[in-house]
Amino acid sequence: MRQSHEQLAGQPIERGAPRLDDAAIGEALAALAGWTHVADRIAKTYRFASYHETMAFVNAVAWIAHRAGHHPDLSVHFNRVVVSWSTHDAGGVTRNDLVCAARVDLLQP
Amino acid sequence: MRQSHEQLAGQPIERGAPRLDDAAIGEALAALAGWTHVADRIAKTYRFASYHETMAFVNAVAWIAHRAGHHPDLSVHFNRVVVSWSTHDAGGVTRNDLVCAARVDLLQP
Repeated sequence: MRQSHEQLAGQPIERGAPRLDDAAIGEALAALAGWTHVADRIAKTYRFASYHETMAFVNAVAWIAHRAGHHPDLSVHFNRVVVSWSTHDAGGVTRNDLVCAARVDLLQP
Repeated sequence: MRQSHEQLAGQPIERGAPRLDDAAIGEALAALAGWTHVADRIAKTYRFASYHETMAFVNAVAWIAHRAGHHPDLSVHFNRVVVSWSTHDAGGVTRNDLVCAARVDLLQP
């Protein structure tokens, strides 16, 4: 059941979503660009032209996180942000992490 | 020349400030609370009651960074932010990093 980037972003967040196996994560990430799956998380680095742009992006991601009730780890630097999604309760990557990754990607289509 | 927290926060940022040695960093950090000096940087973890508080703090730190023309690395989590200052050009911790650390501490007196 391969979904497009936009279809993935539109999926609801579901409480108690189970941890996905490597194959399912790899298949879902094929619809996205630049995300890597390492250990218990998926991560992507976004680059910007200025600190103002960097911070505007950080706040947009925070809004997505607030609406989803699911919060990423962010590494914020001068012109670069690493966004990392994982589901602590599931001990790994769930569909919710993939949905949130797709939503963040839609910030810069 | 031991300075209080407030005195340190009021110092100007100086371009080309030299890297400080461990003793000088240790002496300056004695005026602050909760900062640790590890390798080429100083870092402190701040904790918050909600994601909104976390993000408001992140934006306040970004404003301080913008005004100083000196930008920290931030690790942003749900209710916790790690602020880390270092001066890349000097290859370590300068007085500017200590001044910025003191300014961030003044956000929650």
